[in-house]
Amino acid sequence: MRIDDILARLPPIQPVDREWIAKAEARQLSLTKPPGSLGRLEDIANRIVAIQQTLSPRADAALVIVFAGDHGVTAEGVAPYPSAVTAQMVANFLAGGAAVNALATVAGAGVTVVDIGVASEAAPAAGVGGRRVARGTRNMARESAMTCEETTAAIVVGIEQGLEAAARVEMIGLGEMGIGNSTAASAITAALTGLPPAAVTGRGTGADDAMLRRKIAVIEETLRQRQPDARDGLDVLAKVGGLEIAGLVGVVLAGAATRRVVVTDGFIATAAAAIALRLCPAAGDYLFAAHRSSEPGHAALLQLIGQEPLLDLRMRLGEGTGAALAFGVIRAAVAAFTRMATFASAGVSDRPA
Amino acid sequence: MRIDDILARLPPIQPVDREWIAKAEARQLSLTKPPGSLGRLEDIANRIVAIQQTLSPRADAALVIVFAGDHGVTAEGVAPYPSAVTAQMVANFLAGGAAVNALATVAGAGVTVVDIGVASEAAPAAGVGGRRVARGTRNMARESAMTCEETTAAIVVGIEQGLEAAARVEMIGLGEMGIGNSTAASAITAALTGLPPAAVTGRGTGADDAMLRRKIAVIEETLRQRQPDARDGLDVLAKVGGLEIAGLVGVVLAGAATRRVVVTDGFIATAAAAIALRLCPAAGDYLFAAHRSSEPGHAALLQLIGQEPLLDLRMRLGEGTGAALAFGVIRAAVAAFTRMATFASAGVSDRPA
Repeated sequence: MRIDDILARLPPIQPVDREWIAKAEARQLSLTKPPGSLGRLEDIANRIVAIQQTLSPRADAALVIVFAGDHGVTAEGVAPYPSAVTAQMVANFLAGGAAVNALATVAGAGVTVVDIGVASEAAPAAGVGGRRVARGTRNMARESAMTCEETTAAIVVGIEQGLEAAARVEMIGLGEMGIGNSTAASAITAALTGLPPAAVTGRGTGADDAMLRRKIAVIEETLRQRQPDARDGLDVLAKVGGLEIAGLVGVVLAGAATRRVVVTDGFIATAAAAIALRLCPAAGDYLFAAHRSSEPGHAALLQLIGQEPLLDLRMRLGEGTGAALAFGVIRAAVAAFTRMATFASAGVSDRPA
Repeated sequence: MRIDDILARLPPIQPVDREWIAKAEARQLSLTKPPGSLGRLEDIANRIVAIQQTLSPRADAALVIVFAGDHGVTAEGVAPYPSAVTAQMVANFLAGGAAVNALATVAGAGVTVVDIGVASEAAPAAGVGGRRVARGTRNMARESAMTCEETTAAIVVGIEQGLEAAARVEMIGLGEMGIGNSTAASAITAALTGLPPAAVTGRGTGADDAMLRRKIAVIEETLRQRQPDARDGLDVLAKVGGLEIAGLVGVVLAGAATRRVVVTDGFIATAAAAIALRLCPAAGDYLFAAHRSSEPGHAALLQLIGQEPLLDLRMRLGEGTGAALAFGVIRAAVAAFTRMATFASAGVSDRPA
């Protein structure tokens, strides 16, 4: 299946209507606060008005979708933890013991776990959504990480998950788990931006100096061998991406097509968002960047997708933890917009003395 | 009453014990995440462990205390809204229509409104806590904003409110409302830091260029006339502060004395925190800076109190809106610490491959 066929099965993804932004801005001026004094909270609410096409927007129900997948490139010694940790963390997500579970609970958000490509020989655990497209990617240093068929199949799994979420919630957070996936995200970032791998590659879960040098060298050699085409998001995704990253691409597309608020997370989720925007730039109007990761490549990705992150707390965990934290900020922005009194209704002077 | 007598009535304010920080750091290493990957959330949780002296810290119940007071200096034409707006906004807080109400609701936090110095001739409305110390401050451009007696009385009102809150909640947010109080906060900032008024004075609720120039000139002349002693927090507070600012000073002292998490808000609340720390530096260990206001003097105050703000969303509203928003971040930090599984309990490999 080609990407055009995939997108054709979705409602059309359209840029938000500037007229709704203008209507929201007008209403902001009537609320009992100095104009502009809620800063970015006002911009957030205004955009959600345009996304939902109503002056009574909602940001109540929220879900983090966590895709888990393994990476063949771990054979090159680019990650400090063994691939087995991916499956162990899936079990941890299901048991509610991971950071994303704790943060989602505080945010009143759900967590859906999708084994889209864990390498474990065991079948996906009960309670895991979606389906496993492959048992991890191939080693991108030797061959394309995924075939075209695997890539589109993984995007379709993501779209299915995204549509299911869209039927239930207003906000969808992008989560991922996959030992080795910061190598894939750095390769994607270098491919899409043209920046040298050394500038966009960090320590991931905790590489030491020697491992970081190896990681950079592996990415440099991979890009030389694979020659991903920066203009073609699918080509980049297949050659140097990952199954969980492809799943997130599908969620972004499905979320934008159904006019949902889509909240990125850290470096890996933002790499997926950047691929999705290469496939369909209009999807960017539905994205909110949760936070600035301390991974060095994240800033370049945020610039690429034209987003300023909501939070900057030196987090670098992934899993959707940043998205879960950002739900609270977005919900506050919408609550101020919908719950505040107007100058007229509250009898407050809105004119200078 | 002298400040020493006031402090003597409180439990002693002590720096947090570094050993509790070390215990918290050790536990962080056992949780199922790469070391340090939750960034500042880890630091927040570790400090709350030390504040509460338990490895099972809590950050559930939260309250914003909003002190309202008027400012005689508005006679100099330093604020675009009339003083009457202070009383109007008190009514708006009580009716639940202000921004802080909306944001507190989202955060599951309460809002207490205290008329500590509104200029209105009407008696404080039903539902307003505390007591009115005076009907606004005097015009600091002509004389001290408050007498010593008024200053200490307002601090005592704040202490009483802080102690009452401490009996009910783990987190106390600092809120304020007072037309003209950004002039007071800028004067305090200039007095405490020695920076020129022009560097620490902004537009407040929306001064135009001419009003901003006047505001700066008024502060310059006020500081020349009043000569507040930067080493003496009470002297600065009485000469160029405000009743609501003094109330917040009391809350900081009471919160620190009862080992509660005290969350600042924007420029005015942080000016109060800076005064409290001048009176009692150890109170700083109980403070968390909610956000970076877009008021130009705020950065200098944050540096003075040694705090990096949790959020930076270009907000400049006050009322405790930033504090209400920060409650969610702090609660998430504590939830990750208390709810996450350990590597051992979850069967996740914590060793490099």
